Amino acid sequence: MISKTDFDGFEYTDGGVCAAPGFKAWGVHCGLTHAGAIDSGDKNDLAVIVSDCECSAAAVYTTNKVKGAPIQVTRENIADGRARGVVVNSVNANTCNADGVEKARKMCELAAENTGLSASDFIVASTGVIGQPLPIEPIAKGMPEVCKNLSYDGNDEACEAIMTTDTMKKEVAVKFELGGKTCTMGGMLKGSGMIHPNMATTLSFITTDVNISHECLRHALSDIIKNTLNMVSVDGDTSTNDMCCVMANGMAGNERITKEGKDFSQFENALFVVLLNLSRMMARDGEGATKLIECVCSGADSERAAKIVAKSVITSSLFKAAVFGEDANWGRILCAVGYADADFDIQQVDVDISSKAGKIPVCRSGAGVEFSEEEAKKILSEEEITILVSIGNGEFRAAAWGCDLTYDYVKINGDYRS
Amino acid sequence: MISKTDFDGFEYTDGGVCAAPGFKAWGVHCGLTHAGAIDSGDKNDLAVIVSDCECSAAAVYTTNKVKGAPIQVTRENIADGRARGVVVNSVNANTCNADGVEKARKMCELAAENTGLSASDFIVASTGVIGQPLPIEPIAKGMPEVCKNLSYDGNDEACEAIMTTDTMKKEVAVKFELGGKTCTMGGMLKGSGMIHPNMATTLSFITTDVNISHECLRHALSDIIKNTLNMVSVDGDTSTNDMCCVMANGMAGNERITKEGKDFSQFENALFVVLLNLSRMMARDGEGATKLIECVCSGADSERAAKIVAKSVITSSLFKAAVFGEDANWGRILCAVGYADADFDIQQVDVDISSKAGKIPVCRSGAGVEFSEEEAKKILSEEEITILVSIGNGEFRAAAWGCDLTYDYVKINGDYRS
Repeated sequence: MISKTDFDGFEYTDGGVCAAPGFKAWGVHCGLTHAGAIDSGDKNDLAVIVSDCECSAAAVYTTNKVKGAPIQVTRENIADGRARGVVVNSVNANTCNADGVEKARKMCELAAENTGLSASDFIVASTGVIGQPLPIEPIAKGMPEVCKNLSYDGNDEACEAIMTTDTMKKEVAVKFELGGKTCTMGGMLKGSGMIHPNMATTLSFITTDVNISHECLRHALSDIIKNTLNMVSVDGDTSTNDMCCVMANGMAGNERITKEGKDFSQFENALFVVLLNLSRMMARDGEGATKLIECVCSGADSERAAKIVAKSVITSSLFKAAVFGEDANWGRILCAVGYADADFDIQQVDVDISSKAGKIPVCRSGAGVEFSEEEAKKILSEEEITILVSIGNGEFRAAAWGCDLTYDYVKINGDYRS
Repeated sequence: MISKTDFDGFEYTDGGVCAAPGFKAWGVHCGLTHAGAIDSGDKNDLAVIVSDCECSAAAVYTTNKVKGAPIQVTRENIADGRARGVVVNSVNANTCNADGVEKARKMCELAAENTGLSASDFIVASTGVIGQPLPIEPIAKGMPEVCKNLSYDGNDEACEAIMTTDTMKKEVAVKFELGGKTCTMGGMLKGSGMIHPNMATTLSFITTDVNISHECLRHALSDIIKNTLNMVSVDGDTSTNDMCCVMANGMAGNERITKEGKDFSQFENALFVVLLNLSRMMARDGEGATKLIECVCSGADSERAAKIVAKSVITSSLFKAAVFGEDANWGRILCAVGYADADFDIQQVDVDISSKAGKIPVCRSGAGVEFSEEEAKKILSEEEITILVSIGNGEFRAAAWGCDLTYDYVKINGDYRS
């Protein structure tokens, strides 16, 4: 499993999207399918999350020109900065279909009918195969059961429902203080393929009981996403349906956050901890992955340069394959650093490889240094690998997360339609 | 094998870099190695090509900030637009080594000593593992044998010497007319990994007997490379050592080409045919590849847009894996079209998949159309697949070439240091 990083003032807790007071969730297997699909068995494929009271809401979406129909409907529904719940399905992405928007609206209506809320209260999302008409019947049939069972303990059922090729549930929650009040923030996320830095890059839903304006929520989300989800790449493909949305129901009773300041910063810190953990889980569970690769680029003279270099390393297919083979082929790291579109002096580049088994320098001032292949192998045999790249004397740094490239990535994406 | 395209006025011929009169070549196994290498058996790893008389010479190089030492030496040696030969090794890239430039110069000196030419007459190139000191002894030992055996029939031996993970030799030659004279142009190229559009992308050597100034040669090479080698991607990694160089020895006796015009255009056509064939061979023999993927984007309102979209499709890991699985998962094509960084209306996008087994539409106006999965499977079971993407009513088009993503790509790059 992924190691969690300690942050002062944040305590990890259970319950995912139901960790914060006032949020119920549930998920069921309603039997969605698409042409060419393998039978998904009885895995949940439909989920609903609702808050006991109205929430400030904000979301970020994929930058792909091809956008899933649910994105259009969600945009409309949270244009006022408010929402009460989420309705989401897996298996079928409801994208590139003539009647996609109509079907996405129908999903909101079905959720509304069965919860007593209104259709425009819902964030709607779909993930799965692109370009296959979404059958609405299984959703209509499953919705009463989802809504009847909505529970403060329903996180697990909902979390399963958003999984596609994910091999593990991805959820996290933290408790923290805001102006003397204990607040909670939790989230769930689905991977595992078609994942590449570019606004959101996956489906993720964050809930919190913090009292915050939707303008501040939007501001915080757009800040934090840049250093978390947007720094993950599994395969370089930016999906069509991705969104990350946050709902804040205010039940913690803190003084409402309406502007930048100490409380806003603390809120951003919480969002960072939640999204950082989900980002690392997503990378580690990238399709076929056996290892998490983290690249930290430091010494850059701009944040942009640090980010581009870090991303370039974790995106390199050749390096990803070498990590799978636990081969300290650092030339591939330097190659990826070299083709990154940023200005720096390659003669100043230092590279170290590290993991909990140790840390060794492999490159200094752009040239190889001698190291023990045996020690390198030991470091790379761990499940979480960190590559440290220093590109000069600048003060900026950035981290990016990816995974190794394995036979199973090819199997998952070559052997059947996922 | 790769199908050759017919072009009016060009006739394919044998002999690769020795097809044009006046060019001799040879290659030997000199026993180069590097730390962690598997034994390369007795595969040739050192080659020399020489012309009987002085040549106009031009080259393009990788844009990676990390540049192999041979590139610096080649730049110096052909700064005057002239060369007599090429010396090249595989196995070790002579990159990121403190004494790399010195060793590259030494390779030229050794070639000079054994041919009676001068060191500055040589283009020098290396390919293989990055960051391992290049042992000069095997080269010094092998050079007399290479040079002693230089032959007008030596193309095969030289071609083998530049191979790394290549599974087949890549060579082509054509005959054509220039002002009533029969001219010949031939070339050889090595793949197969660390290949991505960005100036040259591999080692390739072109020889011709055309009489042309080095200024015109440089101009033609920089024109043609953009639509051939730079439109190939195997894995998205731009190598550190790549160069494509052309030597023209003038022995065809045509009126010297010194400016644009009919003869210059015909010369560019010949260079296009040679580099197009080598590009397709390189893509087809991408590491682990079982299929050549060609994407033709038309209807663009700029050449840039057409190129970016075509490249985006052939670069998508998800789509490459689907082609390996012979799965008509066209949603992945549309996804890759959608995240291409170009302006167009996604609602105008049409996609067809084709091969010699047939052609079917899979997407019209950005939405899926019904098609027979069986027919699609038949089309995708061929070895050369063409994806046709139309993005509007513009007049520009571009082609790009790639390959499927397979278990063997992972094996080649994960299992041992290559």
